[in-house]
Amino acid sequence: MNPTHIARCAQLAMVLEVSATPKPGNIDRDHNYTDTRFEHFLASAVGVYPILEKAACAGSGVGSFIRQAVLESARWQSGGNTHFGAFILLIPLVMAGGACEDEAGECLREKLERVVKETTVDDAAELYLAFSDAKVRVKPVDDLDLSDSASVDKIKEQGLTLFDMMEMSAGYDIIAEEWVKSFPKTFECARLIKEKIKAHSINDAIVLTFMEMLARNKDTFIQTKFDSKKAEEVSRRAAIILQKGGGDMEVMRNDIHAFDRELLDEGVNPGSTADIIIAGLFVSLFEGMRF
Amino acid sequence: MNPTHIARCAQLAMVLEVSATPKPGNIDRDHNYTDTRFEHFLASAVGVYPILEKAACAGSGVGSFIRQAVLESARWQSGGNTHFGAFILLIPLVMAGGACEDEAGECLREKLERVVKETTVDDAAELYLAFSDAKVRVKPVDDLDLSDSASVDKIKEQGLTLFDMMEMSAGYDIIAEEWVKSFPKTFECARLIKEKIKAHSINDAIVLTFMEMLARNKDTFIQTKFDSKKAEEVSRRAAIILQKGGGDMEVMRNDIHAFDRELLDEGVNPGSTADIIIAGLFVSLFEGMRF
Repeated sequence: MNPTHIARCAQLAMVLEVSATPKPGNIDRDHNYTDTRFEHFLASAVGVYPILEKAACAGSGVGSFIRQAVLESARWQSGGNTHFGAFILLIPLVMAGGACEDEAGECLREKLERVVKETTVDDAAELYLAFSDAKVRVKPVDDLDLSDSASVDKIKEQGLTLFDMMEMSAGYDIIAEEWVKSFPKTFECARLIKEKIKAHSINDAIVLTFMEMLARNKDTFIQTKFDSKKAEEVSRRAAIILQKGGGDMEVMRNDIHAFDRELLDEGVNPGSTADIIIAGLFVSLFEGMRF
Repeated sequence: MNPTHIARCAQLAMVLEVSATPKPGNIDRDHNYTDTRFEHFLASAVGVYPILEKAACAGSGVGSFIRQAVLESARWQSGGNTHFGAFILLIPLVMAGGACEDEAGECLREKLERVVKETTVDDAAELYLAFSDAKVRVKPVDDLDLSDSASVDKIKEQGLTLFDMMEMSAGYDIIAEEWVKSFPKTFECARLIKEKIKAHSINDAIVLTFMEMLARNKDTFIQTKFDSKKAEEVSRRAAIILQKGGGDMEVMRNDIHAFDRELLDEGVNPGSTADIIIAGLFVSLFEGMRF
């Protein structure tokens, strides 16, 4: 498909995700962190456009495109890491979308599987360099410490591809798990958004999908920043609110607001769930969703 | 300059403008109208990217690019007219920016003057067609009624260029006046934003500049929808709030919120001032402003 179309779907996914409110614990149109603001996310989404467009035309180079996206995002805003996890999902999605003739059927899933499985050692090395460019806090894969510049040499010595690295992290990282298991949460998220938009505004469709994804999955970002218990507790809280509200956004809105304030006060941000929402929004828009 | 850079400056200008809150009477991140929502503006800004990029590479075709932008915007959202007035300012700005070697000095102003003065009869006809595509409410220029399809023939018979048409409207339309007088309010707006961002967030820099521009100039959109008296009254109200607040955003925030609620209740939206803010933001970003 037309690379400018694909790039715009990815860009709009990022812009809609960060705008949706209340999205408990994360930056949204009504919440900033101290050094990172809503507008930094907007500028990042705008800034990466040419990288997304190039990726949609390319048959290889996932790691390099993720790194270019991270660097270009930083040129357009001073809020630090905004979309790192999102780029790890969006870049292969955009490359797969660019390789499809149209938006129908199974093409996106098939191409996506090929894109991630055909990644190389160079892709792994580029992603590692991107992590240190962006100064992102992640759990080291095996003994490959991000703060150690020798890690890239070790990756090359061991001949690890980017897909291999994702396999090594898939047990504890929902983003890596997406790569390894053919993006199940991304497609589930797209299905939920497309279903919810029939009865809700685009904002509320995103908020409800975010709550459902959070309720079902421990957020990796919370688990890394705090621990597994904290991540489980947050998911349980989300599930209780959804159960009590019975799918009615007007019933739940106050509870979601209160949950949001609580997570913000504690510094608990479900960043990995937000990344999956962006990926799911991309798929919905790619498949033709409009509002 | 690099057309992808220019297009991103224009896109970010649109996204930042619609996000800035409280922006009395207009759609912002906290206010929707019934049929047009915040997200429609975001989708419009994302959707027009390829048109902006093409315009940044082109030496002519202002009217056609404005029309293409209007049509592309409508393909990405169902909220109706979002950025019509903004495109009338942005397209020549983007074309002028694309013709400059770098962002320094007087180049943008010089190229801009050439772009608008070299417009043709075809540009005028294309803009007229764009008006009817977008179903925008404007005062007819002379006897060239927008709802009359014969107007395009009359424009051609009379040999009117787009610049000629802007000269005919400049007495009552601040957007047309920008074209005719070398974009004075646009550059003034850029100067104000760059000055205010030294002490304020990007949001507050935009809100304060919006208030100052509104206080100084009768808004054409209000004048067309209501009358000249209403537009004057709105400007006077903005001036009183600014005078009382003495430039301190924290002092003024409550008053601006109250002013916003009042204008929204009355259906009074200073849309032309918002268009000038977008143009001013483009110039600031083109000149290198980051946040």
